[in-house]
Amino acid sequence: MKKRPLILVTNDDGITAPGMRALIDVMKQIGEVVVVAPDSPQSGMGHAITVNNTLFLEKVTIDPTLDQEYSCSGTPVDCVKIAIDQILKKKPDICVSGINHGLNSSTNVIYSGTMSAALEAGMSGVVAIGFSLNDFSWNANFEEIKTFVKQITEETLKQGLPEGVILNVNFPKLKKNEIKGIKICRQANATWVEKFDQRTNPHGKKYYWLTGTFVNHDKGEDTDEWALANGYISIVPVQYDLTAYHAMQQLNNWDL
Amino acid sequence: MKKRPLILVTNDDGITAPGMRALIDVMKQIGEVVVVAPDSPQSGMGHAITVNNTLFLEKVTIDPTLDQEYSCSGTPVDCVKIAIDQILKKKPDICVSGINHGLNSSTNVIYSGTMSAALEAGMSGVVAIGFSLNDFSWNANFEEIKTFVKQITEETLKQGLPEGVILNVNFPKLKKNEIKGIKICRQANATWVEKFDQRTNPHGKKYYWLTGTFVNHDKGEDTDEWALANGYISIVPVQYDLTAYHAMQQLNNWDL
Repeated sequence: MKKRPLILVTNDDGITAPGMRALIDVMKQIGEVVVVAPDSPQSGMGHAITVNNTLFLEKVTIDPTLDQEYSCSGTPVDCVKIAIDQILKKKPDICVSGINHGLNSSTNVIYSGTMSAALEAGMSGVVAIGFSLNDFSWNANFEEIKTFVKQITEETLKQGLPEGVILNVNFPKLKKNEIKGIKICRQANATWVEKFDQRTNPHGKKYYWLTGTFVNHDKGEDTDEWALANGYISIVPVQYDLTAYHAMQQLNNWDL
Repeated sequence: MKKRPLILVTNDDGITAPGMRALIDVMKQIGEVVVVAPDSPQSGMGHAITVNNTLFLEKVTIDPTLDQEYSCSGTPVDCVKIAIDQILKKKPDICVSGINHGLNSSTNVIYSGTMSAALEAGMSGVVAIGFSLNDFSWNANFEEIKTFVKQITEETLKQGLPEGVILNVNFPKLKKNEIKGIKICRQANATWVEKFDQRTNPHGKKYYWLTGTFVNHDKGEDTDEWALANGYISIVPVQYDLTAYHAMQQLNNWDL
């Protein structure tokens, strides 16, 4: 009998988030699951790491069918690093992050703790996938997408991924039978236009909340935004080589 | 007479950091300077944004020759967002970030608050450069590189940058006359190998410090790591489209 894969599960919504609990349910059908996740919500943490502070790690039992669940005081990227170095003491066969409550399509990949955890695993040479659902609610319905999460994870384990590539998988908020299929996409050119909400605290001091509108500047029908808006699951292969190769020739002609 | 450019200056080492003070000195020779920087060190914050907490902004006077200096309670990316939306009320002609105390070459671009601030400006359509020096010391000598910072900024303002591209500039720790020149490079394939330092606090509880070794897996002589190791200033053009286009064809043949 073939050995069951070792699966590291993490997220950025915190260790009790229903999205990760749904992901764990699926992963238990596929392999041996180890959970290392933030002890509190870490949305928008991007690829932050904890360099100026200490990290705490607690063994916890939220799912009694699991032997190894840990809550960590750090960021999602910290969770992946400490899982590999201190808990597993080796690389897992795959790292899955999410399921995020809210999309991480387009340029959100850069702000996302969920995706940064997957990217960190990829940088350590681990096959990795980040999953996100287009529903910010804590009570979002993850049941409808579980079969797709299983299918994508099993196919990824079977096929492997090119070196330096991980997957950014986003799900529309639809019933299972309404989802039209899965599309391999490029990251849409969409960005946030900020609008800070300025208020005054009870002591007379001004403060701000970050808000914004997400604007899609990209009319392409090969993007993740297009796929999601049209009822498809989007998969974007993501890399961590940020070099803009197309700009190098131009820069070489500068007077430097 | 041509109008002097509006220059937004930020960093991740905090508003009092000598590296940013050196950058301000250079920028005052080029244009009108507005400073919006974190009120405390934010190294390793990556592209984190503050979504679950409030932000405070204080007008401060550290350099009496400047009209507009602000310290912000948020991350470097927050600083860029709030600068454009609340302080400038328009886009600056250029955003410069740094000079970071320590390199942001290779994959460090992903963890770096300095570079994420520049990337955020780029995502808002602003020409942007991140500068970093290979010296972690608070008392690092930035005098030796000031003429290069000026030259690179002026040439960037003159030439502009392709849409979606910003510059990651790293300096070796050398005297001005020892620096061999400037090289346009690709991001080296180098990663951190973590080693957590486990300790016990006075109350008997275990905690960890994140430490690690930076390992260069890349023998290419066209990388930023090679340039820096050989006495050159490295410039990597950086983009925020993370799509791994080379992997899309393969993924399209998966059984999904």
